[in-house]
Amino acid sequence: MRAVIRRNRELVCDEIAELAPAQGQVLVRTLACGICGSDLHALHHMEHMIELSRRAGGLDTGFDPSADTVFGHEFCAEVLDHGPGSAKGLKAGTRVVSIPMTLTPAGDVELLGFSNRLPGGFAERMLLSDALVLPVPNGLPTEKAALTEPFAVGLHAVEKARLDADSVALVIGCGPVGLAVIAALKAKGHGPVVAADFSPRRRAAAEALGADAVIDPATESPHERWEALGVPKARGAQTMARMMGQCFGRPVLFECVGSPGVLEALIEAAPAGAQIVVAGVCMETDRIEPSIAITKEVELTFVLGYTAEEFAQTLTHLAEGVIDVSGLVTGRVPLDGVAQAFRDLGDPEAHVKILVEPAA
Amino acid sequence: MRAVIRRNRELVCDEIAELAPAQGQVLVRTLACGICGSDLHALHHMEHMIELSRRAGGLDTGFDPSADTVFGHEFCAEVLDHGPGSAKGLKAGTRVVSIPMTLTPAGDVELLGFSNRLPGGFAERMLLSDALVLPVPNGLPTEKAALTEPFAVGLHAVEKARLDADSVALVIGCGPVGLAVIAALKAKGHGPVVAADFSPRRRAAAEALGADAVIDPATESPHERWEALGVPKARGAQTMARMMGQCFGRPVLFECVGSPGVLEALIEAAPAGAQIVVAGVCMETDRIEPSIAITKEVELTFVLGYTAEEFAQTLTHLAEGVIDVSGLVTGRVPLDGVAQAFRDLGDPEAHVKILVEPAA
Repeated sequence: MRAVIRRNRELVCDEIAELAPAQGQVLVRTLACGICGSDLHALHHMEHMIELSRRAGGLDTGFDPSADTVFGHEFCAEVLDHGPGSAKGLKAGTRVVSIPMTLTPAGDVELLGFSNRLPGGFAERMLLSDALVLPVPNGLPTEKAALTEPFAVGLHAVEKARLDADSVALVIGCGPVGLAVIAALKAKGHGPVVAADFSPRRRAAAEALGADAVIDPATESPHERWEALGVPKARGAQTMARMMGQCFGRPVLFECVGSPGVLEALIEAAPAGAQIVVAGVCMETDRIEPSIAITKEVELTFVLGYTAEEFAQTLTHLAEGVIDVSGLVTGRVPLDGVAQAFRDLGDPEAHVKILVEPAA
Repeated sequence: MRAVIRRNRELVCDEIAELAPAQGQVLVRTLACGICGSDLHALHHMEHMIELSRRAGGLDTGFDPSADTVFGHEFCAEVLDHGPGSAKGLKAGTRVVSIPMTLTPAGDVELLGFSNRLPGGFAERMLLSDALVLPVPNGLPTEKAALTEPFAVGLHAVEKARLDADSVALVIGCGPVGLAVIAALKAKGHGPVVAADFSPRRRAAAEALGADAVIDPATESPHERWEALGVPKARGAQTMARMMGQCFGRPVLFECVGSPGVLEALIEAAPAGAQIVVAGVCMETDRIEPSIAITKEVELTFVLGYTAEEFAQTLTHLAEGVIDVSGLVTGRVPLDGVAQAFRDLGDPEAHVKILVEPAA
């Protein structure tokens, strides 16, 4: 079958081996698979990502970044066949989504999209796990179902935030992670939400997803707008009040940029007692001033991924229209268009999300 | 009256103006006042501390680091006289402690020990606030009551920790902050507590305060002992389990060193899902690898000071013997011995806590 393969730090279209579903596995046809920022990063920096992941004690799946890899972990697919021992008995033709993990009969886990052994969604077919696939509700278009994975990331970040009833959330960066956070905040009934991004296209997407105030940091301070919407302004007075036992609604910031220096800028701009949920993935060494974080009693909550439950809840949010992702898919490419799509995504004005359609 | 004054980055004994209690203020005679690590740091680096505090939006009290300052914020004192409008009517001779803040009739706040206008506890007398002083319970010796302030710091750090019933806490650094954290963990009924320090003297103090395992990092990994006591070892498996919705007792580390590099070392050594309570005050720029913190979903909780309630609770802990600080005071000096005591405290083997006794 055809797939887009990362080989020698380039993307090439080539044939790969056909797949046969083992015990508990489902063979699917990939209908659509989004291109993620981590795919863009991994194309050139996979070795560094793997080294950091190993230092972090992450899953050591024996992954070899110099070997062929088929990316793609934001997918919607259609059931073709089952291995033995299927509990769900999903019929051929059923559309499904899944967290991008496949269990092997030996009990190992393959991370789809970052595996040398199983292809991710930039291939015509994949092997999923019967235990993990979720049927796509009728009426939810395939292109929206394929956004379950990136939007689950936002729900997870919001679940890790300790928002009070009167908290005003500030979302810094409206790329895919920031947009997913905005959508989850609104889906959970939080508000108002202030969002900031330099890109007009991303600001428009943030507004479409329900952000109450969308700021261009080039012309206005997001922190000032945020304060105007309810965050106590007097930081000194707040420190004092805290020592005297008073409480305020907790200010929560979401760092959704992932570039060096952003975290320290947020620590310095944040009011006392703020929680900064760090959802943007900065792959470089960063510098902070601990004493400033200490003086403000800031909390840095680093988050990644989602639970299976959050993934399922996001699918429900999309199916019920609680999160409306209309207009976010700005491009569709067949397998031989993926390499160009990776280049196009370097410009934040050009696209929000591009889907790969391997059958096209 | 006599006081030890920070002047031109040196400590000198000199006369300062007598004090007269205003509305709501209490004139006290200083009985004992501990020397804090922040005093040692401030002697040489006050200007940098003030700059960082201003960048943090901290209390701007118009403090001038080039003007005379009388340090001392860990004190026990005796009531001499009242200004008008005392609600408590504490009799002369009553021993008191207080959070190191004095309210002025104009409604301003002076941070005792870091003020140009009011002296801290390295002076024969101080002005406290009637609203903030707490009488020392009968039977609690003055030298133990003077430890209320530094031990309140530990209780605050523990209150900010989200320990589960089966959490095992790891305390890195057994200087005054680490010792206070250990004492608060035991006072609150948490355990087991693993503590680590390179200094034999500090390890002995940690053991006396109830730490269940005390490690010399030069000969044994505190993280391995910690894991042996109940923290899930398989970090990769834990990440996986988390994605599948399983839970573990939350591992909580207390960073009580405050030197550059320690935070990143803890991030790299911590198990997935750990909370690192940062109580050590690092006054220098530090480096972290955000992607490792993200992969592990680490939470960094920066803490400072305490609430008035935590301060009062610590006084109760000391009075009831829930925290036994016997043996921690390893030196007593009169005012003209303070400069030498600052030098002596540079060696962690020489002392745990030195009290200044201005009346001696």
